[in-house]
Amino acid sequence: MTVKLGCNLTYEVTADTIFVFNVEVARLAANANLKDTVTVNPGANVEFYESPVRRNRYLRVPASPGTLSLHYEAELTLDVVRADPQTLAEVPVAELPFSLLPYLLPTRFVPSDRVAGFAQAEFGQLPKGHQRVSAICNWINDHIAYTPGSSDAETTAAETIMNRAGVCRDFAHLGITFCRALGIPARYVTCYAYGLSPPDFHAVFEAYLGDRWWLFDPTRQAALDGLVRIGVGRDAAEVAFATLFGGGTASPPEVWINRSDRTPSDVWTTDAISLEGLS
Amino acid sequence: MTVKLGCNLTYEVTADTIFVFNVEVARLAANANLKDTVTVNPGANVEFYESPVRRNRYLRVPASPGTLSLHYEAELTLDVVRADPQTLAEVPVAELPFSLLPYLLPTRFVPSDRVAGFAQAEFGQLPKGHQRVSAICNWINDHIAYTPGSSDAETTAAETIMNRAGVCRDFAHLGITFCRALGIPARYVTCYAYGLSPPDFHAVFEAYLGDRWWLFDPTRQAALDGLVRIGVGRDAAEVAFATLFGGGTASPPEVWINRSDRTPSDVWTTDAISLEGLS
Amino acid sequence: MTVKLGCNLTYEVTADTIFVFNVEVARLAANANLKDTVTVNPGANVEFYESPVRRNRYLRVPASPGTLSLHYEAELTLDVVRADPQTLAEVPVAELPFSLLPYLLPTRFVPSDRVAGFAQAEFGQLPKGHQRVSAICNWINDHIAYTPGSSDAETTAAETIMNRAGVCRDFAHLGITFCRALGIPARYVTCYAYGLSPPDFHAVFEAYLGDRWWLFDPTRQAALDGLVRIGVGRDAAEVAFATLFGGGTASPPEVWINRSDRTPSDVWTTDAISLEGLS
Amino acid sequence: MTVKLGCNLTYEVTADTIFVFNVEVARLAANANLKDTVTVNPGANVEFYESPVRRNRYLRVPASPGTLSLHYEAELTLDVVRADPQTLAEVPVAELPFSLLPYLLPTRFVPSDRVAGFAQAEFGQLPKGHQRVSAICNWINDHIAYTPGSSDAETTAAETIMNRAGVCRDFAHLGITFCRALGIPARYVTCYAYGLSPPDFHAVFEAYLGDRWWLFDPTRQAALDGLVRIGVGRDAAEVAFATLFGGGTASPPEVWINRSDRTPSDVWTTDAISLEGLS
Repeated sequence: MTVKLGCNLTYEVTADTIFVFNVEVARLAANANLKDTVTVNPGANVEFYESPVRRNRYLRVPASPGTLSLHYEAELTLDVVRADPQTLAEVPVAELPFSLLPYLLPTRFVPSDRVAGFAQAEFGQLPKGHQRVSAICNWINDHIAYTPGSSDAETTAAETIMNRAGVCRDFAHLGITFCRALGIPARYVTCYAYGLSPPDFHAVFEAYLGDRWWLFDPTRQAALDGLVRIGVGRDAAEVAFATLFGGGTASPPEVWINRSDRTPSDVWTTDAISLEGLS
Repeated sequence: MTVKLGCNLTYEVTADTIFVFNVEVARLAANANLKDTVTVNPGANVEFYESPVRRNRYLRVPASPGTLSLHYEAELTLDVVRADPQTLAEVPVAELPFSLLPYLLPTRFVPSDRVAGFAQAEFGQLPKGHQRVSAICNWINDHIAYTPGSSDAETTAAETIMNRAGVCRDFAHLGITFCRALGIPARYVTCYAYGLSPPDFHAVFEAYLGDRWWLFDPTRQAALDGLVRIGVGRDAAEVAFATLFGGGTASPPEVWINRSDRTPSDVWTTDAISLEGLS
Repeated sequence: MTVKLGCNLTYEVTADTIFVFNVEVARLAANANLKDTVTVNPGANVEFYESPVRRNRYLRVPASPGTLSLHYEAELTLDVVRADPQTLAEVPVAELPFSLLPYLLPTRFVPSDRVAGFAQAEFGQLPKGHQRVSAICNWINDHIAYTPGSSDAETTAAETIMNRAGVCRDFAHLGITFCRALGIPARYVTCYAYGLSPPDFHAVFEAYLGDRWWLFDPTRQAALDGLVRIGVGRDAAEVAFATLFGGGTASPPEVWINRSDRTPSDVWTTDAISLEGLS
Repeated sequence: MTVKLGCNLTYEVTADTIFVFNVEVARLAANANLKDTVTVNPGANVEFYESPVRRNRYLRVPASPGTLSLHYEAELTLDVVRADPQTLAEVPVAELPFSLLPYLLPTRFVPSDRVAGFAQAEFGQLPKGHQRVSAICNWINDHIAYTPGSSDAETTAAETIMNRAGVCRDFAHLGITFCRALGIPARYVTCYAYGLSPPDFHAVFEAYLGDRWWLFDPTRQAALDGLVRIGVGRDAAEVAFATLFGGGTASPPEVWINRSDRTPSDVWTTDAISLEGLS
């Protein structure tokens, strides 16, 4: 089963600017047989970097005033790990791998310390495990309206609770916030999402259950076994599609994803889905 | 039916300080036959003030380092207005008395503008009128834990939603916030509350329905027809029991209230209760 | 000396909406010989209200979907009170008129309690009186960039300190915040401002010194003796030019003001200016 | 030159609790010849972990209700890197090692995005390099009062600006915030600090200049060449001395540090000091 995807980004650069892009598909076992190309124009002095643990792939591009464009395309075989959700337990803090403890801490857009009372009151007494994280996603889907334009780059999960509205970024941040407040490691994931309408970059989250990270999408806008990971971070700041040090205005991105074996209207999986062979 | 009540306040004053107290019972029709005395020691240069519209009674007391004490006692006949809650409708903004429009605006501890999305999502579709304000009180009572020490003098209603905990001040602020966000005028009320255990000053709120202000207590800690009003304000800042310009530490206040006709364990009224003969 | 001023406001109303306007010149001694007319189209069921103490004039207009326009024009003789700034002392809290104490309290956009440390550190040791409020205005003018579009209707004075940018509303809120934190009553003033370029509604603030309210404009965009008061409030929420309960989009307002005796390039007064004969 | 240091921590544990401690000296070239021992009582099932890049050393201790104590002592030869501050330049974003880019991002207690306007206005035009970070430290020392008890575990750098008061944690967060807002990577450092009075754990920050991280202490409470690093993190959350998952109350920690070659009253270094041989 083959997935083909890509994106076109275009900027009108207004000052000498450094761009850091994070749009390339991560080189994971789940993204098998990955072949991809990225073209930046003008493309002088582009640098590539793959972060050692999370395997996020970044491009750093120095740009002068004028038009900057990036074209990315990739082909891969999506090979996810599946499990029965009922088998996935929460891991007590005493037994969590030490390297995961930072994923319990509050971050800029994830004030899990301030929202601890809310999380405990709403979810503290629920049965633990995958079903509790699912209950969090259900709560978010029931209580937060998906409303383009209702939030911005400074919106925190606390504000999303107030606003009762947000976009995929806010849905993911809120899910992460609740998980961390309950002692469940959680992190932010950017991806290409098969079936997302209209096509765009997508953001979901991963919670650590059993012995690895599992995907959750409180927006319910795409099947979990059609997500192709770009990056993971503690919150959206670490995996922005584009970070500009300087100035420029973006055209709406063009994003596409197709797969050979399925249509978006097929029945969605009820399996738990992980993109990691090993935690 | 006679109510007797009072309080003792004691401060260790650490610098030249101006105290503004608001502990005297308001001279309302509902507080009939009011006889009261206030004694401040040392009591030089104490000034009394009754605000013209709200009828809050303030004392201004200049104090030097040392002990300052205030003793207040009052006797009155509580004579409230009663109504069948089902008869009390919300008043469209087009028909509200102009002088009430400020009670729709956000204030320091009542960020009704920021919480508008939350209020609309939770209560926007409910049937209007007294029952909607009751639904707000039920929601608060169900979702916020009454927890002494969980908040402080800077806590806003937005934070109370996050914390899912508060005291009577926070319960009242949250009720006011939701009402204002829905277009219902609401204000903060301080009172002596018959049956409150342990005895203390109490805070509730009033919403404007039909043609006057009606009492609501989301804490459900005292019967509505046993509340003796001290002050009303747009939020707690305006009717603090004591405001200090200077420095001092308070002993826990002693507060008492007794009535001749009833015990705290009597069945509570289900009437709507107003303290105002005229709006 | 005669002032002629006015405004045109136009809205595309998208739902049944109640408008509350506050654009009429206040009937103060300072606004002598006031003759004005307001025309609303369509103008059915327009109500007028003048608040009893502050003398703000409000219009309530019910509107259906379609175009709503308001035309206001006024003529008056501006007759301000002048004083030598050096004669204007701060009033100790012990001596303030009781009715002014609310102007020391924090409000939604004026978190004077949270910014108290900042205010004390920056201005607490300065010589008291008019010169201290002037020092506050100088600080604001030196440290905050006047930047249209840098703030919105939810911006508080605390955020203005962070942003180091704002518009007249933010400059006024910040001045009020610092004054209140220092024990100086202060309030928000909306006005027509002679010489403001481009012409627009303007916001400044008043501080209570000596025996009345005195004008301050930290933006320094217009001479103080060319301000014609519309409204005063505890913060901007109370004196918005237009408050909509419903939905609509505004065209940019047209605002004008001319005077018979002066040009905008004349030397500005260094007098302290008050619009009130009596406090 | 030999440094001897240590700490005693004691807790009354009130529920089954997981402690994560970060009090051991980092195994850096600067902390040469390190010999240390840590004793936990009761000490069953204690786990040790050293993070791979930052080299923070954590202990995870499961505890039952009762008394938990930790005794740590260490001996080492402090061997810092020194440089002439004037030689240390800021590194353009285009040239920063990729792995340092996360140290430009906002975190929970370091809202560098929200304070960007403040940082640019105050420091944006200053000469770049070590002197600019020194100017930031000077500003903090001049404007923020070192006031024990003025902040808590949720205080952000934005609030520290409002309060104009804080402790070492707040001073460090504010320095980091300003640096990141200016494009200078910065991170939070916990340490034992020779000469700190009274002895306690200390927090400072590092900024990346030239080719490595350099120490800065806006509190000016200890000489930079007497700091022995415990941990580094993006903000205080990552390197808390103790994080409790459960419940307990701490006695005041006992902390000590002595060195063989110097007294606290010796002249402090004016060198730039780094604890890293390689960036």
